[in-house]
Parts: sequence; C-alpha cells; structure tokens
Amino acid sequence: MPQLRKDPVTHEWVVIATERSKRPCDFVAPEEVVVPPPFSEKCPFCPGNEAMTPPEILAYRTSGPANGPGWWVRVVSNKFPALAIEGELDRGGVGMYDFMNAVGAHEVVAETPEHNKRIETMSCRQVRESLWACRQRMIDLSHDYRFKYILLFRNNGKIAGASLEHPHSQLIALPMVPMDVMQEMRGVRRFYEYHERCIYCDMIRQEQNFGKRIIEENEEFIAFEPFAPQFPFETWILPKKHRASLVDETREQVDSFAYILQRSLRRIAKCLNFPPYNYTLHTAPFNLERDPNPYFHWHLQIMPRLTIAAGFEMGTGVYINGTPPEEAAEHLRATDIQELEDAAECAGVATTR
Amino acid sequence: MPQLRKDPVTHEWVVIATERSKRPCDFVAPEEVVVPPPFSEKCPFCPGNEAMTPPEILAYRTSGPANGPGWWVRVVSNKFPALAIEGELDRGGVGMYDFMNAVGAHEVVAETPEHNKRIETMSCRQVRESLWACRQRMIDLSHDYRFKYILLFRNNGKIAGASLEHPHSQLIALPMVPMDVMQEMRGVRRFYEYHERCIYCDMIRQEQNFGKRIIEENEEFIAFEPFAPQFPFETWILPKKHRASLVDETREQVDSFAYILQRSLRRIAKCLNFPPYNYTLHTAPFNLERDPNPYFHWHLQIMPRLTIAAGFEMGTGVYINGTPPEEAAEHLRATDIQELEDAAECAGVATTR
Repeated sequence: MPQLRKDPVTHEWVVIATERSKRPCDFVAPEEVVVPPPFSEKCPFCPGNEAMTPPEILAYRTSGPANGPGWWVRVVSNKFPALAIEGELDRGGVGMYDFMNAVGAHEVVAETPEHNKRIETMSCRQVRESLWACRQRMIDLSHDYRFKYILLFRNNGKIAGASLEHPHSQLIALPMVPMDVMQEMRGVRRFYEYHERCIYCDMIRQEQNFGKRIIEENEEFIAFEPFAPQFPFETWILPKKHRASLVDETREQVDSFAYILQRSLRRIAKCLNFPPYNYTLHTAPFNLERDPNPYFHWHLQIMPRLTIAAGFEMGTGVYINGTPPEEAAEHLRATDIQELEDAAECAGVATTR
Repeated sequence: MPQLRKDPVTHEWVVIATERSKRPCDFVAPEEVVVPPPFSEKCPFCPGNEAMTPPEILAYRTSGPANGPGWWVRVVSNKFPALAIEGELDRGGVGMYDFMNAVGAHEVVAETPEHNKRIETMSCRQVRESLWACRQRMIDLSHDYRFKYILLFRNNGKIAGASLEHPHSQLIALPMVPMDVMQEMRGVRRFYEYHERCIYCDMIRQEQNFGKRIIEENEEFIAFEPFAPQFPFETWILPKKHRASLVDETREQVDSFAYILQRSLRRIAKCLNFPPYNYTLHTAPFNLERDPNPYFHWHLQIMPRLTIAAGFEMGTGVYINGTPPEEAAEHLRATDIQELEDAAECAGVATTR
C-alpha cells in the first residue's frame, strides 16, 4: 500500500510509492560521466580569466594582487544578477497588487581553481575553505539592514540548472523572508510553543533511535534521509547540537560539516552515477522583530534530480517519491566510497590557517 | 531595475527581471517539432489497444461494447496509480511523524482516439467533449466521502513529465487538501473576510481596466498573464462570473471554456514553437466543514516549461521570471493563430448531444 507521509515541520504531505519502489539502477543513466578538462579558456572562474567576472568581493590567495590568479577560493558578484545591490525597496501598490524594487545581493563562489573538480573529488580542505568563505560572506551580508534572508545553494549539472561547469555555489540575499522559509519558521515555532523544544533536536534523537534512515554521523553532525522526502535519495545534514545559523559555526564545526557533506555527496555520487543535484541551506532569517534562534535549527537539504516535477506536483505541492527513505539509506550506506576518498588529492592546497 | 511582485492570493514573491527581459526567440528551440504518427501499435490509448489499459471507467462511444474501439473520449484508471483506490485512511503516527494510507483515485483521460493530435490541433468539439468527461468524473469522485480535493492536470511533452505521447489529461483525487491549495484557500479567505468580496472577481475587473495583460476574452471567460507569474508566459483562464468549481459549469459554459483554452494554447504554441507545458485546475475542495464556495473562484493555470527551477527556487519558493507578463501578453496577442484554427478539423467527431 502506498503511504502518505507528512513533513513534521512544513506539514506537507508526500506520497511514498512503496509498491513500485525504485532502486538506484532505475535512475542511473547508462552513459559515462564526462569529466571536463582541468582548465577552460572560456571559463570565467578559471585562473587567469579573472577579468571575465565582476571585481572580486573576497578571495583567499597564496599570491598575486586582487582580480588575478593566485587564489584558492574566490567570490564575485553574479555577472547577470537576479537582484540589484544598489537602491532602496520603495514598496508600492497598484490596485490590489504589491511590488517593490528587487534589491538584494547575488554572489558566486568559485570553490576551487580547478575546472574539472566536483565536491566529491575535491580535497576536504578545499571544501572547508569554500564553506568558510560562504560563512564569511553571509556574516558580511547580514549586516546590511535591507536584507532578511540569505540563501546558500548549489546547482550541480545542467539538469539541476547549472549554466557553468566550473565548481561553484551561489549566495542570494533577499529583502524579505520568502514564503517557503516563512512556512518552515511557522512549523518550528508551532512545535516550540507546544513542546518548548526544538523540533529538529527531537527529530535527530528519533532518527538516532530508529537508525534506519541515517547515512553518516560524526561527533558534530548527522546525515539522514528524512521521513517524508519529496525526492528520491533526498538527504539532510544537521548539526547535532542546537544552532540556528551557519554563521554561528566555529572553524572546527565548519570543518566537520565539510567532511560529512563530502562523504554524503560521495555516497550519492557513487550510488547513482554522479547524478545532477541541488542543495540548499536552511538557516535562520535575521533582522526580524522576533529572534528565531531558540527554535530554528540550521541544516542542508540535498536534492538529487532524478525525476521531473510535473502537473501533479505543480498543482498540489505533493510530491510522489518512488524510493522509500529507509531503502534509499540502505543503498547509500552500502555504497563503497573508499576509491573516491583515496583519489581526492589532499595536498597542494593552501588554507587560511 | 528588477522588480519583486507579490501574488495577491498566495503572497508569494516573484522576481521580474525586467533588465534582461527574455523574448519568445530566447526560448524557442531551433529544431522542428516532431509530429507523431496518427496511430501507434504500442500506445495503450490508441483504438484497438484497449486491452492494454485497466477497464474503462467512462467512455463516450459511437459504437462497440466497453473496452473496445468506437469511443471518442475514454477514461481509465492509471495502470501505475500513485494512490490506491481501495481501503481506509488508517491515520497513524510514529513518534513525531504522521502517516496514512495513500488512498485516492488516479485516472487518465484519453482526449481523442487520434495519437498525433494536441489540444491546439484538435477540433474544438473534441476538446469540449474531453473537458465534459473530466467534469463528469469529478462529480462522481466528489461523492466519495474519503476525498477532499481533485486535481485535473495535463503534462504536455517529455520535459513537462509526460511519459505517453497520446493526448491525455489526468485526474487525482486526494484524501486531504494539499498544502498549496490550503495556502490558496487561506489567501482568498483572508481577502474575503477583509473586503467581503472574491479576490479573483476583483482581479478580473482590475485586469479588464488595465488591459495590457489580457490575451483572450469572450462572454464567459478571460485569459490573462498574471501580475506575478512564476513562469515566463504563464497564463490563467477564469470564468468572469463567480463560480467555485468546474463541476458547477453548464454544458454551454464548458464549451466556452474549451474555446478559450484552445485559443490560449494555440497562441502559446505558435508564439513559442509548441513548448512543453503543464496545466493545473484550481477548483474548490469539497467535503469540508466550511463551505469555500463564496470565496473560491475556479481557474486554470497554464505553465510553459521554458526554464529550469534550480536551487534558488527550491530553497525559497521565489521564482525568477525573465519575461514581464505585460510583454508576454503583447507577444501572445500579436501571434496569428488563424492557420492553426483553419487546420483543426471540425467535422467527423461525434458528440454526446
């Protein structure tokens, strides 16, 4: 019997189609994964091509002046930003409709100088560095009084919306708390008001007791398949202790997060033949009247793009997921990632320490 | 300056990227549209292949017994249903998680016996007939006390999630009101409680006064590009008089709806070279404690699939739309659909009248 499962935070239902359960081989594309060259002349994020991007906002460098080579992580404004960094909101209305200027920040983080890397094949040190740069940018952007939310996200692969091959993440700062985040906030607050506890802290305990949906765990973090995942092999990573925002993490905690992120993505990559994916950071909004820190618990949501959202999903918000998370976790846990771990070159990258 | 616009019902913000405005030619695929053959031996919806589907639930026939050829519209259960038609909900919980049996109906409407047709190339009579069949099935399903919402939707093209080429729509009856519909309900009710008017009735008046977003209008219906569209060339069709559900429509009103639906889809097809699209029906839930009819106003939402939803959209629910609706409407209005109208064969199809 297929099952309807409710996300305990958002209260969104998901159909878990247990009867026609899909295993990794039902998704895996038969083609070989094409590995790009280590350097591309046309790529704006390859070293030496710095003039092809807007001026850098932040760079970790071994050498060289700004906007030349010698960096190992580099953050620039998006050349085609969705939002404008200058100006005030100027809220207004026409009849029943509301609008404002799309003021915000839209930045791109080049995560490594090497064009042909992916998070799964980078050294762990490189992943730490790029996450540390994201955190640094988030702290800076949160000081702008016009902004209320920052989204860190990554589109990996064309099907997941990536227009550039070079490994990169994006940061978008918004002048309002978007509806999906509001919905999550409402959910965590509802639980907090009822139980006086953080719902994600409870969820972690329940997942640890159950065990069957966990794929990775270390001292600071846990990665599991959620109870009501919208996507096959959807994976969440959370700090095990209650913390509201990535910006609250220490250097050591970010290092630990980089490690579990990398191991989780390696499991997904090896299990599903390097599928396209998106990940998004769920972190507390800021500059609000009411402090969300007691009840918001930051986490990362990884969504492999193995299926197409169609009319049903678009018309209801209810997703049909053919892979029960307990089975997905079993497949991911059974995946051998030693080869990927060994191959990732651990030397030759400078750090900020 | 890009603009943030708020959907007046759901309160979801959309980024209208006015600066890098995308015209139809920025989306149109260069390839020719492949027209399939008029009959396919492997297609379960082609006449003569009725044994390949579950038994028919409804068919409009000129001849023949059930489950053979001779029909012009045929409704069957989905061979791989997302939900099970038999059984009770059996709601339950495990710790903090809620679940229930995924009880519901999942039906497929073969809209014509001709494999190679699309709504844009069918006779209007054929479109009327298939919509009438949908209405008839919706009335029947709404009598099942277990169901609270029915979604009628259409996936057109592989990119839009269609797995079969033969023209078809789908109906899914659900045992709960899904979150997206709840959100819409909350929006219309909020407006109704404040103004004692239907928000969509107001919206129609405002669009008529403004004029620049309208693409089609007849005595009973209006089609326009919404003020805050999530997708380029997104189009809404609404009855001009307040009615809550498609099941409330008379034969004449359904005919009128078929005509404006067809004309709107023809404009989109000619303007954008037959793009993949989804459409979803927004209609009032039923079997609820509180009657939504005074404030819910049914409508159809057409979403061409010209862009990819990526990390930003998935992490915030905020869509970036590069085509302002005023420009989209101008392009659609300027599109000549006479050729398509003339080509659609108007004879040779039987009707229920």
